[in-house]
Amino acid sequence: MKQDIKIGVIGGDTRLLATAHSLARDGFRVNCYGVPKIKGKYNGYKICNTLEDAVRGAKAVVVGVPYSADGKWLNCPPKDYAISVKALLCNMTSGQLLLGGRFDAGIFEAAEKHSVKAIDYFASEELTVLNAIPTAEGAVEIAIKELDISLRDARILITGFGRVAKVLAYTLKGLGCDVTVSCRKKSEGAWCRVYGYGFMPLETLGDKVDGYDVIFNTVPAPIFTRDLLCNTDAVIIDLASVPGGVDTDAALELGVKVIRALSLPGKVAPRTAGEIIAGSVCDILTEEGML
Amino acid sequence: MKQDIKIGVIGGDTRLLATAHSLARDGFRVNCYGVPKIKGKYNGYKICNTLEDAVRGAKAVVVGVPYSADGKWLNCPPKDYAISVKALLCNMTSGQLLLGGRFDAGIFEAAEKHSVKAIDYFASEELTVLNAIPTAEGAVEIAIKELDISLRDARILITGFGRVAKVLAYTLKGLGCDVTVSCRKKSEGAWCRVYGYGFMPLETLGDKVDGYDVIFNTVPAPIFTRDLLCNTDAVIIDLASVPGGVDTDAALELGVKVIRALSLPGKVAPRTAGEIIAGSVCDILTEEGML
Amino acid sequence: MKQDIKIGVIGGDTRLLATAHSLARDGFRVNCYGVPKIKGKYNGYKICNTLEDAVRGAKAVVVGVPYSADGKWLNCPPKDYAISVKALLCNMTSGQLLLGGRFDAGIFEAAEKHSVKAIDYFASEELTVLNAIPTAEGAVEIAIKELDISLRDARILITGFGRVAKVLAYTLKGLGCDVTVSCRKKSEGAWCRVYGYGFMPLETLGDKVDGYDVIFNTVPAPIFTRDLLCNTDAVIIDLASVPGGVDTDAALELGVKVIRALSLPGKVAPRTAGEIIAGSVCDILTEEGML
Amino acid sequence: MKQDIKIGVIGGDTRLLATAHSLARDGFRVNCYGVPKIKGKYNGYKICNTLEDAVRGAKAVVVGVPYSADGKWLNCPPKDYAISVKALLCNMTSGQLLLGGRFDAGIFEAAEKHSVKAIDYFASEELTVLNAIPTAEGAVEIAIKELDISLRDARILITGFGRVAKVLAYTLKGLGCDVTVSCRKKSEGAWCRVYGYGFMPLETLGDKVDGYDVIFNTVPAPIFTRDLLCNTDAVIIDLASVPGGVDTDAALELGVKVIRALSLPGKVAPRTAGEIIAGSVCDILTEEGML
Repeated sequence: MKQDIKIGVIGGDTRLLATAHSLARDGFRVNCYGVPKIKGKYNGYKICNTLEDAVRGAKAVVVGVPYSADGKWLNCPPKDYAISVKALLCNMTSGQLLLGGRFDAGIFEAAEKHSVKAIDYFASEELTVLNAIPTAEGAVEIAIKELDISLRDARILITGFGRVAKVLAYTLKGLGCDVTVSCRKKSEGAWCRVYGYGFMPLETLGDKVDGYDVIFNTVPAPIFTRDLLCNTDAVIIDLASVPGGVDTDAALELGVKVIRALSLPGKVAPRTAGEIIAGSVCDILTEEGML
Repeated sequence: MKQDIKIGVIGGDTRLLATAHSLARDGFRVNCYGVPKIKGKYNGYKICNTLEDAVRGAKAVVVGVPYSADGKWLNCPPKDYAISVKALLCNMTSGQLLLGGRFDAGIFEAAEKHSVKAIDYFASEELTVLNAIPTAEGAVEIAIKELDISLRDARILITGFGRVAKVLAYTLKGLGCDVTVSCRKKSEGAWCRVYGYGFMPLETLGDKVDGYDVIFNTVPAPIFTRDLLCNTDAVIIDLASVPGGVDTDAALELGVKVIRALSLPGKVAPRTAGEIIAGSVCDILTEEGML
Repeated sequence: MKQDIKIGVIGGDTRLLATAHSLARDGFRVNCYGVPKIKGKYNGYKICNTLEDAVRGAKAVVVGVPYSADGKWLNCPPKDYAISVKALLCNMTSGQLLLGGRFDAGIFEAAEKHSVKAIDYFASEELTVLNAIPTAEGAVEIAIKELDISLRDARILITGFGRVAKVLAYTLKGLGCDVTVSCRKKSEGAWCRVYGYGFMPLETLGDKVDGYDVIFNTVPAPIFTRDLLCNTDAVIIDLASVPGGVDTDAALELGVKVIRALSLPGKVAPRTAGEIIAGSVCDILTEEGML
Repeated sequence: MKQDIKIGVIGGDTRLLATAHSLARDGFRVNCYGVPKIKGKYNGYKICNTLEDAVRGAKAVVVGVPYSADGKWLNCPPKDYAISVKALLCNMTSGQLLLGGRFDAGIFEAAEKHSVKAIDYFASEELTVLNAIPTAEGAVEIAIKELDISLRDARILITGFGRVAKVLAYTLKGLGCDVTVSCRKKSEGAWCRVYGYGFMPLETLGDKVDGYDVIFNTVPAPIFTRDLLCNTDAVIIDLASVPGGVDTDAALELGVKVIRALSLPGKVAPRTAGEIIAGSVCDILTEEGML
């Protein structure tokens, strides 16, 4: 049945190529255009000569994450391609799905005009949780590299307790580390006790920020102000989405090392990241009654 | 009491400087010569102008690991110093201890001629076990970096089940990984079951080596022959001491990626590595009745 | 400051006595009435001769969980006492807090008539989460006792994925067990992957219920129908609140062993359960501006 | 092939019946005599009417653990049987193996006279390690039951660091507990650090025994003297083989609760214990070239 379903994959980075590979391995007929050329590792899909060929007859067209940097041109790293969002939509027909990451109002509107249903696979709860696994591993890799002590001996603070923070705390605890979590919601303190993490309310952070060797921030709000930065010698690994959680000017002046670590799944484990997106694409096809 | 005990630290790398720092923080009077100049991080010791000054009056003289690359010149990375083993021993007097790493027959003989007792701190069981912690973390860092899938999804094989393998298996399991151990001694299979690792006897490795994404070797013997390498797509991270466990020529020809990872504690966590050596130095001083 | 705050503790079981002990150890002046007489273990509080004495001047009056079996008489196991809810409220004055467990509409209304603010400490998120720890331990104890295989070898299913299920799954995984979770919400499958549990949607349970040695149910709805019970040889440990999740008549007929395990914290770890309630009492006093 | 091999199983407890069941399930022809009658759970073997029938033609004859309480009568709990060791050996012929647990010099001599090779399956390293898993679970069950606090909150001491202690420490740590180990060999302190346990040398136990809620002893030597017992309120769970590690008279006088917990695998998980023995029997048959 899956071999009767055609999926177009347009542009994107290595991760999206891994998505194409994973969908093909699952049995879909996958037509690509504008994808990176990486030999050997990823295969099973067909590379088309034109955008039109890749899109024609597809139940769903999958683009990268973010789908575009400026809302006009598709995310498409290979330099020999320049694919506009408009060109893509003009090639699509009513009833096709457009799936991509970090869709904004503009793309939803534009898709609607072309009678194309646009769905953001990056909004999926499963995808977000599963992506937290390679994110946590990438954060661990950075911490091992940056610290001159073993992680096991490090005093570790995690700010925030959302998905990434939860998975990271669990991962570090598994490594034998001493982990303290700081977030706003006090009842999370009980969960921290369950999982064996220390806990402090975020509002008391200022007094205690000096006791850590490494701080993983997951809060996208200016928590690490100049005042706080004055009191810490820790390396700060900032995993929070834009704008991050650190006053970087102050950090620079004060000599606090801050490492901005974004989009780790695609960097650390592109194949896994692609499989996670492929899983999300399958879920969406199922929900839309196409599978 | 410790402040009455003088210790000389001669040559060595960052790790030995961290040892000096750690001993000084513990209260010893530490005199260094020929150590790397690293500002800010390590302190509390005195830097002497001559070898003689650093050695005179010391209960113990601590050198690096390995103590020497050729048995003639001390391990002493900074280029402005060249300290011969002979010069060191000539400056030492009867009753002083010479402590270093990976001592060979030559150094023991030479020390004896100078009535100096030489003790290899790297032969300590505690040190070897504790060093396995940063070694395991370094191996994890390499694996996360090299694999294009998340470690959590990787099929992992560890060959050998000595100290490093035990700590590495435990660390990877803690990270949520699926770990299989392969070693000669069959009764270790029961321990693997206790700790939740898969097990296969080393002699059956040939038939099953194809099922893994990453292999950590800890056996310093030619296990990974051309025949075995033909059957695997795994990345091999070779942690075994010289000569390692992989036929590197065959690996190169066959396109099997092998990463030789030696002396990880000093590279990954020099401060921790130095503290571990300092702990070993203290243990030796206690055993020798000097503390 | 705490020594200026008087707290009355009325009736209840060992757990509430442990609450009195814990509050007294924290510095409060604790006056008890109608509590069990247990020598040696719990102390620091004063036993009053009359209800009036215990209540007079108290900032808060703490009763047991459930506060009453019938809404009329306070939960008060010692046979020489019979304290009515009405009598308690008549002794209380405006501004005093009435704290108890599992308050119903009746008690809130009655309290309001006496201008007494009633707060259910058992509704606290923290308390519920923390109570899940001794609940999980009690469930583990039962499972070890009931199974003729080691828990490590058992195929374990947990139905539901609320607080108790989450803590139990984590506890069993920590013990080295193979754990599968089944619940309605599919996105929990991603969390199960994070924590290393198997997952199946609850609607597919019927087909797969035969593969388990022990099932921990946490869903208070009739999941384990006669049809399902026909297909399992597992021991079922039912942790769900009334009415539980098992058709007990069918189970009896079919010879499926069902163990109803309720109120485990008070049974398994009364001292810990009392400390958790004391913590909740402190939180409430803080929120009410009394601390 | 296994179906051509006959094995006799004589006497023993539920565990040995489970061994018979497990061997039969593995494909051996199993003839029993003098085993407990337990319906439904264990099957696949044949019950013989006479000792002679059960022994005749068997490659190996398996008896219980311990093989005998007095060296004369076989361990055979069902009251309607009384089987002497002599009678068993008289029925055996040269070339048959006699396998049992806790063989002493007497049985080895007697077997030799009958040209029967006797092998103690309980001396197997694998069996001892694997048995430590249900032992640890049994110890956990007892501790949860005996303590009035949750195990997670308990301060736990383990004396000794042999196989049982290692598995128990690992199990308790997995449960989230704080574990301290005390043993003679100081280098084990490094392993304790690897696994995240506290450590103290056994000779310093006297000064620190007061800080624990529960103590698991695994050392079969009089460690817990009157002096030590004076300083502790802990519950002591004594897992050490005879004579245990506690001065029980002193404990009784001082009101220290001591629980003697022996042969836990057979009590807690007889089926698993039987499977472990069956595994050991298979290993022995393989080593003896019979499989």
